[in-house]
Amino acid sequence: MILAATSVAARSTGSADAELIDDLVAANRILADQGVLDGFGHVSARHDKDPNLFLLARSMASALVTATDIMTFDFDGNPIDPRGRTAYLERFIHSEIYKAHPGVRAVVHSHSPAVIPFGVVGVALRPIFHLGGFLGAGVPVFEIRDAGGETTDMLVRNPELGAALARTLGRAPVGLMRGHGDVVVGRSVREAVFRAVYTEVNARLQSEALRLGQGQVVFLNEEEARRAAETNSAQVGRPWELWRAKALAGDR
Amino acid sequence: MILAATSVAARSTGSADAELIDDLVAANRILADQGVLDGFGHVSARHDKDPNLFLLARSMASALVTATDIMTFDFDGNPIDPRGRTAYLERFIHSEIYKAHPGVRAVVHSHSPAVIPFGVVGVALRPIFHLGGFLGAGVPVFEIRDAGGETTDMLVRNPELGAALARTLGRAPVGLMRGHGDVVVGRSVREAVFRAVYTEVNARLQSEALRLGQGQVVFLNEEEARRAAETNSAQVGRPWELWRAKALAGDR
Amino acid sequence: MILAATSVAARSTGSADAELIDDLVAANRILADQGVLDGFGHVSARHDKDPNLFLLARSMASALVTATDIMTFDFDGNPIDPRGRTAYLERFIHSEIYKAHPGVRAVVHSHSPAVIPFGVVGVALRPIFHLGGFLGAGVPVFEIRDAGGETTDMLVRNPELGAALARTLGRAPVGLMRGHGDVVVGRSVREAVFRAVYTEVNARLQSEALRLGQGQVVFLNEEEARRAAETNSAQVGRPWELWRAKALAGDR
Amino acid sequence: MILAATSVAARSTGSADAELIDDLVAANRILADQGVLDGFGHVSARHDKDPNLFLLARSMASALVTATDIMTFDFDGNPIDPRGRTAYLERFIHSEIYKAHPGVRAVVHSHSPAVIPFGVVGVALRPIFHLGGFLGAGVPVFEIRDAGGETTDMLVRNPELGAALARTLGRAPVGLMRGHGDVVVGRSVREAVFRAVYTEVNARLQSEALRLGQGQVVFLNEEEARRAAETNSAQVGRPWELWRAKALAGDR
Repeated sequence: MILAATSVAARSTGSADAELIDDLVAANRILADQGVLDGFGHVSARHDKDPNLFLLARSMASALVTATDIMTFDFDGNPIDPRGRTAYLERFIHSEIYKAHPGVRAVVHSHSPAVIPFGVVGVALRPIFHLGGFLGAGVPVFEIRDAGGETTDMLVRNPELGAALARTLGRAPVGLMRGHGDVVVGRSVREAVFRAVYTEVNARLQSEALRLGQGQVVFLNEEEARRAAETNSAQVGRPWELWRAKALAGDR
Repeated sequence: MILAATSVAARSTGSADAELIDDLVAANRILADQGVLDGFGHVSARHDKDPNLFLLARSMASALVTATDIMTFDFDGNPIDPRGRTAYLERFIHSEIYKAHPGVRAVVHSHSPAVIPFGVVGVALRPIFHLGGFLGAGVPVFEIRDAGGETTDMLVRNPELGAALARTLGRAPVGLMRGHGDVVVGRSVREAVFRAVYTEVNARLQSEALRLGQGQVVFLNEEEARRAAETNSAQVGRPWELWRAKALAGDR
Repeated sequence: MILAATSVAARSTGSADAELIDDLVAANRILADQGVLDGFGHVSARHDKDPNLFLLARSMASALVTATDIMTFDFDGNPIDPRGRTAYLERFIHSEIYKAHPGVRAVVHSHSPAVIPFGVVGVALRPIFHLGGFLGAGVPVFEIRDAGGETTDMLVRNPELGAALARTLGRAPVGLMRGHGDVVVGRSVREAVFRAVYTEVNARLQSEALRLGQGQVVFLNEEEARRAAETNSAQVGRPWELWRAKALAGDR
Repeated sequence: MILAATSVAARSTGSADAELIDDLVAANRILADQGVLDGFGHVSARHDKDPNLFLLARSMASALVTATDIMTFDFDGNPIDPRGRTAYLERFIHSEIYKAHPGVRAVVHSHSPAVIPFGVVGVALRPIFHLGGFLGAGVPVFEIRDAGGETTDMLVRNPELGAALARTLGRAPVGLMRGHGDVVVGRSVREAVFRAVYTEVNARLQSEALRLGQGQVVFLNEEEARRAAETNSAQVGRPWELWRAKALAGDR
């Protein structure tokens, strides 16, 4: 398996588009700067030359990631170009989602603080405002006990757990992980980042609205959510420019 | 229509007062720095030479706006001086409010985070302290379904929706937009900014007070609110100097 | 009256201790940096040479105050050394507290955000932890309607309202102002700053604890509060050094 | 006693490992930067050469600590190398925990804001997500009235109170102090810092989840908590690098 992967590597490593790498580095920094990622969590991109590979930083805090930290992985979670670099324990979140969902081109796994409470109580995360419209597709919750039993360490640390998570996610853009965090996917790095940030914002607003309204809240209806999501997907470049400028300001 | 607008432009473009432009740029930066605007939302000013025109940045995050990004629009939402610049989809919020309300000289549209919950539950935003006195005039809520039906993308993206919003706003300084955000108007850019910031602060304090007091809260009465608002309108220069210094510090 | 004040000025202006002025400037900056003051609110010190005078910045945001902004006032609220500088409308908060309470050497008036809710609901602010021990003396609430009727602009804008506030405060270190903010006094500028910061912190913690415990909370008892306050008053220099370094960092 | 200590000092002072001192200085800065410590609170390390001594900064705000501020103490709380430096009043928290628990190599005492409410209400702090797994061992609450009576100043200011606190803590990594704060211990400085930061994060998330779920929350079970804690203890270096870089950025 590793040999096969290595031969793939000979074909693809180092050939990922420079702009894709740049976006992925920026995504790492942005998600930290926006409070979605802390010392843990990660973001990946499907390889632009080979859809059976993906790009993910070595095991480190996303706020510190630079281009030289980006590694290439195959769908077994094996690094193509380790060069002594350590891989995240939970890289199988990424590999299995890319394997199961061909349309996904970027994956964020985070411990997004306002989102975590929604994963441990029986209250569904729903679109409270237009920027959370993408949540209208439904937000499934992954209970690791269903796939891994009662005695895991909560980590999606092997292909089986990754595949179970990918199945729970289905075609939704966001899936919660009970007692852990969430996964957010997109058709581009920028879209995944947009969704990850606004999943956090939506969760914060929804939690507050539920308290203020004592549970009586008007959410976007299905069609409003769908159309808002469509409109917003064409606008992800606007906050991206701002977030990128802020997150990379220290690099200048 | 565009030809007509262009002939107006020949008369007015470029002639807006330099101090007004400067205030509008500062307003963009301040509202971002104070957490009222994020990558989305915008602030405009009525043109000082021609009351049938208004000034608004091109489609971009307000935190990054400079003087060269300020465009001039007519009341149909057509840019007088596009020069290749893209306009905000929701410029009709501004055009229709200026058209309907001659006394308004500045408009803020935001996704002010503490305010959004008040737009989706049946709890009125009310003045909890003197700096929110301007809310005493009442805070109407715009339900886009009433004007646009059940299947909009939530955006005020045409003159008809803008006109409906302007009608709902009436003579109030602040109007909420269900599942979206709010609009705040003022008799000057500085007053609109003052109100936008303190609408957010008041919402945060009110939400907290309602919880702490389990719904039993003493609000400003009508006369207290009116008089406090009058006093404060004469004091908007004080926080403005501070906010401006902070927001533009990076430019030095 | 103004003439008399001026003759006092001839005796005292400019002669306030340099360290006191320095502490007062630092207090202005610290209270802004710690989120107790925003564009509004102020902090004063009793004059060290003449106990019938006090020092207070001209009307401006505290975050921008420097030594040249510090003015001297008499107990009628008249500036001794205006030199064209404008006085805060609410300087009577300070003048009347100094007049009524000889042991007070510093006064903070703020719109401290976590504190305001306690002023508008029937829940008393109480010491939730040792650093809020000074609250154990009781925290009275000033209802301006009692002194000024139902139609004020909420501001303590004359000696009569100031005197009423000073009476309500009594010997307590902290008094709330309904629909407005609070006043905090100390035996030194540093003690008043310490108390103002920890009044805000205590309010935040108490509000959270009341929710978490659904109203069932163990507060410090009277003796714990009194002793903790005594101990902490001897420790105010420790956070002061930190806060001062942070708040004045930009001046270097 | 002091003489004996001094003779120990002759043997050990100055000989603590440079990397340990460096970690302890970084821990002081990190805990301030992460909002666990403010002007008060402290962090210590057991001496690497002599297990009956420990290292702790002089009485000052942790955010300002440098290597020259680190003092060495014996288990009676006597400084070995005072050189005119003042010791924290509550150094007995550290001395008695090191004395009672040989496996502990670092101790944090803080007024961690999200944690304090859990110490004053009848709601147990429990692991809401994998990074709080170490809380699964149970979080005891120290009631100072049990050891010191009804009239203390709330401080653990002598060996007797320190010993009582150490007994309450037992083998748990975290213990709350009613009306005061908490203590967190670790097998290394980095582990104690990791636990202190995630105790705060877990408290914030748990409080929010309890409200959102109206008390119905799925916590990690005992085995999930134990295994997650084990996994995470091997990962403390990852956030440490990030936190250290951020906290010491100003030193460059």
